[in-house]
Amino acid sequence: MVGGSVPVFDEIILSTALMNQVISFHSVSGTLVCQAGCILEELSQYVEARGFVMPLDLGAKGSCHIGGNVATNAGGLRFLRYGSLHGTVLGLEVVLADGTVLNCLSALRKDNTGYDLKQLFIGSEGTLGVITAVSIQCPPKPRAVNVAFLGCPGFAEVLQTFSTCKGLLGEILSAYEFMDAECMWLVRHHLHLTSPVQESPFYVLIETSGSRAEHDAEKLNDFLEQALRSGLVTDGTVATDQMKLKALWALRERISEALSWDGYVYKYDLSLPTDTLYDLVTDLRARLGSQAKHVVGYGHLGDGNLHLNVTSEAFSRSLLDALEPYVYEWTAGHRGSVSAEHGLGFKKKDALHYSKPPAALRLMQQLKALLDPKGILNPYKTLPAQA
Amino acid sequence: MVGGSVPVFDEIILSTALMNQVISFHSVSGTLVCQAGCILEELSQYVEARGFVMPLDLGAKGSCHIGGNVATNAGGLRFLRYGSLHGTVLGLEVVLADGTVLNCLSALRKDNTGYDLKQLFIGSEGTLGVITAVSIQCPPKPRAVNVAFLGCPGFAEVLQTFSTCKGLLGEILSAYEFMDAECMWLVRHHLHLTSPVQESPFYVLIETSGSRAEHDAEKLNDFLEQALRSGLVTDGTVATDQMKLKALWALRERISEALSWDGYVYKYDLSLPTDTLYDLVTDLRARLGSQAKHVVGYGHLGDGNLHLNVTSEAFSRSLLDALEPYVYEWTAGHRGSVSAEHGLGFKKKDALHYSKPPAALRLMQQLKALLDPKGILNPYKTLPAQA
Repeated sequence: MVGGSVPVFDEIILSTALMNQVISFHSVSGTLVCQAGCILEELSQYVEARGFVMPLDLGAKGSCHIGGNVATNAGGLRFLRYGSLHGTVLGLEVVLADGTVLNCLSALRKDNTGYDLKQLFIGSEGTLGVITAVSIQCPPKPRAVNVAFLGCPGFAEVLQTFSTCKGLLGEILSAYEFMDAECMWLVRHHLHLTSPVQESPFYVLIETSGSRAEHDAEKLNDFLEQALRSGLVTDGTVATDQMKLKALWALRERISEALSWDGYVYKYDLSLPTDTLYDLVTDLRARLGSQAKHVVGYGHLGDGNLHLNVTSEAFSRSLLDALEPYVYEWTAGHRGSVSAEHGLGFKKKDALHYSKPPAALRLMQQLKALLDPKGILNPYKTLPAQA
Repeated sequence: MVGGSVPVFDEIILSTALMNQVISFHSVSGTLVCQAGCILEELSQYVEARGFVMPLDLGAKGSCHIGGNVATNAGGLRFLRYGSLHGTVLGLEVVLADGTVLNCLSALRKDNTGYDLKQLFIGSEGTLGVITAVSIQCPPKPRAVNVAFLGCPGFAEVLQTFSTCKGLLGEILSAYEFMDAECMWLVRHHLHLTSPVQESPFYVLIETSGSRAEHDAEKLNDFLEQALRSGLVTDGTVATDQMKLKALWALRERISEALSWDGYVYKYDLSLPTDTLYDLVTDLRARLGSQAKHVVGYGHLGDGNLHLNVTSEAFSRSLLDALEPYVYEWTAGHRGSVSAEHGLGFKKKDALHYSKPPAALRLMQQLKALLDPKGILNPYKTLPAQA
């Protein structure tokens, strides 16, 4: 997305693909220790066979490595329920710039001995050290999973539905995703998917994960009844079987693929206060007019994370100039983050100052100089070049 | 506990007691931003009145400051459910050693712009900077809370009961605490509390927190039925009303107070693999014999956290020599942590190497030198003096 792992000039690429072994798994605590090159989906299958799930899940699961997930602090679809990797990663083994192996591969849930060094490497995109092994806390596998797909008449109703469902679904809510009508048009037009509900300005996907099917169904039904009765939701469908569940998730997960069929894509991954999250999309549609083919908004609403995407037939310099720095300034003006979960990499490193003050940037540069004095680890990435 | 905030030689004490204002609270997302001197219990009351709870709770809540909680990465009673402060703290404002104000007081759930600097200060015990404000994610207040207090015939049954209850209580399980028979003797003898169940070698306190009382009660009853039928549990009682609930929690929470009435107390706060967690207590009883008045074990079993306490009439050098480094070596031999949630402070800083390798210790010293070159921030603490 931001080219964090793509060579730009003279870099040497280091692959961890052969470091793909599970080191240990504890079947009571759910602690998984594995090498960095393990593929996320394979780890998921491994722990699911043992009654657990990985605390993260994302569209790229079939190819992404757990080491890369940790290095980029990947967010994804389970963030709302299980939280950030800063909380679920228990330990790391990291090779430092001078070749030292830093073994902080603890399998303990709690450890307050000195500074929590592993945190430095989570989300630093390989610029401070190379992650070679990961210890991670896996939650128990939910016995019942339900997905509801709903149509909402406006963004205000999307927000109110979120409040209502937090109240009524409580601890079983595991995802709250939204997409606008243009996203639905894109997946129908380019991927020939079918919408399971009436045409609406907005769509919401809600997932519940719980330990007892009948309790979860009762909570979900009560919520749907209230949401429909109060007009927050105009149409909806619920899935409990695997096939239909996957079909509903596909509508949300394959938006990115549909966009790539639409032309050149300008991608932004923003954190914004949920109340004003969609204003930027509306604002940009007016600003860009016919310059853009599509301006769409979707994402992890439960986490305040907007994926804003703009398409045009081909790359256009003037369209890019209309987008940047406008999008970044708008985000900074709303005290948001110009990169919620994708990281900065090469393309967005110079946008860092929109979300972090000079003192923070200075400390980041100092940490980089301390840990990688020769600048050999993922150079040209994450931090802007020093003045 | 480890004297982290107590002056030892020539330090100047900095109080944040007057920095006790809530800066903002967002009633949909549950994000609280407040000054560092706010008292945890007051924050709890503030957010509970608005339908949320603090993600941490501990015995000292009536006096401890949120800034200190974050600086020491406090664990406590809700860790099992809501996880570590590394996951729930969203942002910090920190004053660095040179007086720079580092404003990373983000209220966003997701922010991948550059290194996650706040993590450096969580658990570094004030040795890298002074936390002046905290932004923290509060989970919704559970509508129903139940507590079960159970007697178990042995530690193996305590462990099996944990597995059973994770399976049947699932997402509503919010605490799994254990205490041994000697702990019960101490709270009965010194504090005149009454045991609500038959005398047993071990006791377990289970708390559930959920969004729907009848579902939670059904899950809890099914669990209790199975635990009693299979002999994992020999006696038990359940509380749903506030008074009885508090009385049951008091048995566990007031152990520390009862110990202080028993004589001089040698305190250890260890993380160990749950399977072997209690072996150390048994082992020490045999090793110390009549030298010790009491050797007791209790703690947050769900997190692998053992509070091991030894009492004697008065301080005894030979008893201390029998305990240290034996306890640390035993813990290191089981790949545990010599400080699970209490930190190192002054008393345990030299035990750091039992849980962290030399490369980690070196990097910690480098970070300290970078952030506090003159060594003015909480000196003599956390890290051993450099050779």
